[in-house]
Amino acid sequence: MNNNGIGTMPANGRYQAAVRDGFWNKYIALVQDVVIPYQYEALHDRVPEAAPSYAIANFEIAAGRRTGEYGGMVFQDSDVAKWLEAVAYSLMLKPDAELERRADEVIDLVGEAQQPDGYLNTYFTIKEPGKRWTNLTDCHELYCAGHFIEAAVAYYEATGKDKLLNIMRRMVDYVDTVFGPEDGKLKGYDGHQEIELALVKLYRLTGEEKYLKLSAFFINERGQQPNFLVEEWKQRDQVSHWLGRTEQMDPAYNQADVPVREQEVAVGHSVRAVYMYTAMADLAAITGDAGLREACERLWANMTGKQMYITGGIGSTHHGEAFTFDYDLPNDTAYAETCASIGLIFFARRMLELSPDARYADVMERALYNNVLGSMAQDGKHYFYVNPLEVWPQACKHDPGKHHVKSERQGWFGCACCPPNVARLLTSLDQYIYTVHGDTAYVNLYIGSEWTTALGGTNVSIEQQSSFPWEGKVSFRVNPEQAADFGLALRIPSWSDGMQLSINGQPQQDAFSTEQGYLVLRRLWQPGDLVEVDIPMEAHRVYSHPNLRADAQKAAIQRGPLVYCLEEADNGQPLSSITWSAASGFTDRFEPALLGGAVIVEGSGFRTESGSWEDGLYSRRKPQSQPVKVTAVPYYLWGNRGSGEMTVWVKEDRI
Amino acid sequence: MNNNGIGTMPANGRYQAAVRDGFWNKYIALVQDVVIPYQYEALHDRVPEAAPSYAIANFEIAAGRRTGEYGGMVFQDSDVAKWLEAVAYSLMLKPDAELERRADEVIDLVGEAQQPDGYLNTYFTIKEPGKRWTNLTDCHELYCAGHFIEAAVAYYEATGKDKLLNIMRRMVDYVDTVFGPEDGKLKGYDGHQEIELALVKLYRLTGEEKYLKLSAFFINERGQQPNFLVEEWKQRDQVSHWLGRTEQMDPAYNQADVPVREQEVAVGHSVRAVYMYTAMADLAAITGDAGLREACERLWANMTGKQMYITGGIGSTHHGEAFTFDYDLPNDTAYAETCASIGLIFFARRMLELSPDARYADVMERALYNNVLGSMAQDGKHYFYVNPLEVWPQACKHDPGKHHVKSERQGWFGCACCPPNVARLLTSLDQYIYTVHGDTAYVNLYIGSEWTTALGGTNVSIEQQSSFPWEGKVSFRVNPEQAADFGLALRIPSWSDGMQLSINGQPQQDAFSTEQGYLVLRRLWQPGDLVEVDIPMEAHRVYSHPNLRADAQKAAIQRGPLVYCLEEADNGQPLSSITWSAASGFTDRFEPALLGGAVIVEGSGFRTESGSWEDGLYSRRKPQSQPVKVTAVPYYLWGNRGSGEMTVWVKEDRI
Repeated sequence: MNNNGIGTMPANGRYQAAVRDGFWNKYIALVQDVVIPYQYEALHDRVPEAAPSYAIANFEIAAGRRTGEYGGMVFQDSDVAKWLEAVAYSLMLKPDAELERRADEVIDLVGEAQQPDGYLNTYFTIKEPGKRWTNLTDCHELYCAGHFIEAAVAYYEATGKDKLLNIMRRMVDYVDTVFGPEDGKLKGYDGHQEIELALVKLYRLTGEEKYLKLSAFFINERGQQPNFLVEEWKQRDQVSHWLGRTEQMDPAYNQADVPVREQEVAVGHSVRAVYMYTAMADLAAITGDAGLREACERLWANMTGKQMYITGGIGSTHHGEAFTFDYDLPNDTAYAETCASIGLIFFARRMLELSPDARYADVMERALYNNVLGSMAQDGKHYFYVNPLEVWPQACKHDPGKHHVKSERQGWFGCACCPPNVARLLTSLDQYIYTVHGDTAYVNLYIGSEWTTALGGTNVSIEQQSSFPWEGKVSFRVNPEQAADFGLALRIPSWSDGMQLSINGQPQQDAFSTEQGYLVLRRLWQPGDLVEVDIPMEAHRVYSHPNLRADAQKAAIQRGPLVYCLEEADNGQPLSSITWSAASGFTDRFEPALLGGAVIVEGSGFRTESGSWEDGLYSRRKPQSQPVKVTAVPYYLWGNRGSGEMTVWVKEDRI
Repeated sequence: MNNNGIGTMPANGRYQAAVRDGFWNKYIALVQDVVIPYQYEALHDRVPEAAPSYAIANFEIAAGRRTGEYGGMVFQDSDVAKWLEAVAYSLMLKPDAELERRADEVIDLVGEAQQPDGYLNTYFTIKEPGKRWTNLTDCHELYCAGHFIEAAVAYYEATGKDKLLNIMRRMVDYVDTVFGPEDGKLKGYDGHQEIELALVKLYRLTGEEKYLKLSAFFINERGQQPNFLVEEWKQRDQVSHWLGRTEQMDPAYNQADVPVREQEVAVGHSVRAVYMYTAMADLAAITGDAGLREACERLWANMTGKQMYITGGIGSTHHGEAFTFDYDLPNDTAYAETCASIGLIFFARRMLELSPDARYADVMERALYNNVLGSMAQDGKHYFYVNPLEVWPQACKHDPGKHHVKSERQGWFGCACCPPNVARLLTSLDQYIYTVHGDTAYVNLYIGSEWTTALGGTNVSIEQQSSFPWEGKVSFRVNPEQAADFGLALRIPSWSDGMQLSINGQPQQDAFSTEQGYLVLRRLWQPGDLVEVDIPMEAHRVYSHPNLRADAQKAAIQRGPLVYCLEEADNGQPLSSITWSAASGFTDRFEPALLGGAVIVEGSGFRTESGSWEDGLYSRRKPQSQPVKVTAVPYYLWGNRGSGEMTVWVKEDRI
């Protein structure tokens, strides 16, 4: 059933490589050494400075090990699942008997909490028994199941242990008796998409068609009339889990207003959207469904071409953590949730499977190096949910329209979706570096790694060395088992200008063709061939589409994959006083003392002199400006030096 | 008790003049011919396109004339009061037997709705009998009484009829038995200030000290510990009228967190704030209370020096229609409620009584000609509550953070506070033109009018002719009964540069001194002396304080008292593509075809060429800009030519 000429993903859907990267291994180690253990403590309510999670306690109650009240959000179970998934990836990278023992214990607990019919969800088991499947819109039952399925697949692949896998197969078998096109079954789907992509993973691992069929059912049923979520809401007497009785419900929030194949623009809750698009792209790749593929391409084009921040953030409003409309990307009230960018990376990765087009990898890189990486503090214990592009700390405190924006990363949250999502992404980063189409390996991310794959019938190991994100020098040692013809396609980053290539020390000028944003090296490879690439990484200005009103007459700075920002720590305040000179260039230098070392960018601009202002709020006198040196730091490091102003976009002189 | 050397307001607190003004009489006539009759119909639920008001129906039910349910907001009564007050002012300007008959009928109805003990409030009479004075925080009982007191005073002055006056005196006598420092009385005050300023008016009319004492009690008790509003909320089991049970209540929203004399900055709901400050300034003027006066000056300085839009709008957030903090004046999410600017005018007028300082009159003029005037459509039937300084119509519809902003004026509202407030302000505009201190008449607004007053023991009539707001030529025919020494003080507008003066055709150079922003003509006046003033009204740029981040690197246009804006109708969209040239000047011309005739301002700028943009959202290529003629129209006229973009602040080249 797989493979309609589009992508040659391994049966299990994974291209496992070993990350050996000077930049990323530090973060992966942080996840392994700090985040996973810290999350384990948090799930057990043992972090003194954080509000209790209740996640493990809920399972203990559901398992009958203790008594008590359900605690936390209705989807609290998913935190346990995401932790297990991150643990699985971590164990693939580095065995850890103690960690595996803890995970096994948690899995035992999960198994005990499973009901005799296979049902698994502590909220409905403890708090609302008998109310299963009465509020799919709000209550995340299938969402939580989806996360446990992802964890189960990963844990099986990491350890070969099938206990959690079997727990989740029982759960899915039970779900399959509840939902489906057959008479007497619910023609419904979850309010928060997630199980759809998880079922594809389960199908890829097991080859069991019914999982694929169930995923497709959820996707295909979504938005059909009569609308399941609306009818369900009416049957509940219009009562919402979150809001009590409501007068209106808008299934566009759940991307369920129209059938998925008819959706034209990204709407509603942004994490739900990208999780759904991910499953749609998976299904399109596996089944060759052209309508689904076209919908994915359309939604991708709208989302990344009209509704994405330069940092790879999506979902511009905190009201419903949602998309608004084309070109509406305010910087200071941005939501740009961390989880949404992680979902965008999932979706981009699936689109790369459908079609080797560097645009997808560009967005993946943008979201990864900026919005996602920036969400985590250097200590691994503090996170941003909301990733604004402009911050005025006083406004975060005193302007209710900006209360959702924080100027410093916060500890573990009541709704702890983002930190475990970061953990599972970083520990599975190897899966995002490469794709294979036909006999060609595509390099999507320049991340140092060791990888073995089959290309045109030959086993090939590729060792990538990368100096990203600080320098653009990357090399590939290509080792086929024996000399063989195949392709190695190197992504030409959209931000680059003049990529240099040599093979075995010989510069290659125009020897190879560019296809969909990749420089495709098709040749007879010898064992030990060395490909060296130099991608210039000069700091440069970026401008936005004239319809993007929030960034008009402004420039951002980008260097390589990193977007830069100005911080009060370097430039004083108010940052709005600073303008870039249009003509001047930038210098950059590696600053080892800055938060583990980073390249900072300096340029010349002007600063409005507050001191010369002698009037009240308004005056006929134009404030004077003076030349000033301006320092920009990578966006991902912002907010690590105390609470202060920050801005990505800076006004620039017209000429 | 009156008069500690500060102001010589007539006993009734009014400086009645007859407005004879080419600009304003059109609006006053609009209020008389359209707004008041239209509001009458609306109060009677007879406007087919508008939601019912229920205001008169509530009185009919309370009066026992009919049965039914209470309708509308808890403060719906106040709409009737505000209408009666506007009618009273209108009758002073122009007798209208039919209108007076209708008002008398409404007053009869109000009288029938009054309870035997004097209590008057239809909400508690119909809907929650027995719950009087249990929720001052939310339920506006004293607020509604205050509006009826204002109406009663005005109606008595207009007609000599004392029926409503006696109704309200009975109500106040009853309130006086409920509230006060004595044992057994409530040591409370209303959640929405209003009765405090109304009681001062009642005192001024009647000379009855107990009204003044009650007003001072409410002001002095506010914010004292234990906090009345907080204790009351606890006694209600923390139940709010609006939100059900709440976990927190913040008396700063009601300016009741600390005693009024200790308040340093403007906080909370902006209309509540300025209504309170108005009463504080009244009491300070009457009693000479220095602490109260200093608080007024401090709060004025903060509000107008750090929290006021260039249009005279205050209250920058729609969350609670409230102040946020210093220099936080976002243009596109502004609230700047019409009623708040009207209250600001009330307060400014009282401050002018305390001290003849042109700064107060400048703010009064700014709020009147821009925020307030702009709130009303040219048909008198459509209004803005929210007066933004930047509008993108799609964002009003699709960005939940901007749903409160409308791109076109709306019909009668569910909460109809603003339209009747505009009506009562415009029909009483004569009271804002002049003040008297000692033997000097101060001209605060340049509005054509006929006025007679006593200056230094001589009756003087002053006929002002004004070409405002389009030209700065103003003349005063000064007619003392006989030759006499006194002063005529002409406000030098803060926006003016080089005011010219002649007396009886003779130019006067430096013959008179400037005191607190007024050119004070102290001389021996002869009957028929003619003072002519020419205040240059060239269009000019205005810049904002460097801390006002939302307006950084931008300029606004002002010409005379009018702030200008750019509209899509003249300049296309997106307006963010336009920058002003720093060096170029402006031309202006009267355009008779524009909405009844207005001076438009033209200048040269640059427009970013959308057509040349070939990339996606972000690009290394800077978009090209081309010279463009830019047209600005008075802010008060915005949104009258269909839904489109609008902006007051426009980016300007640095040099």
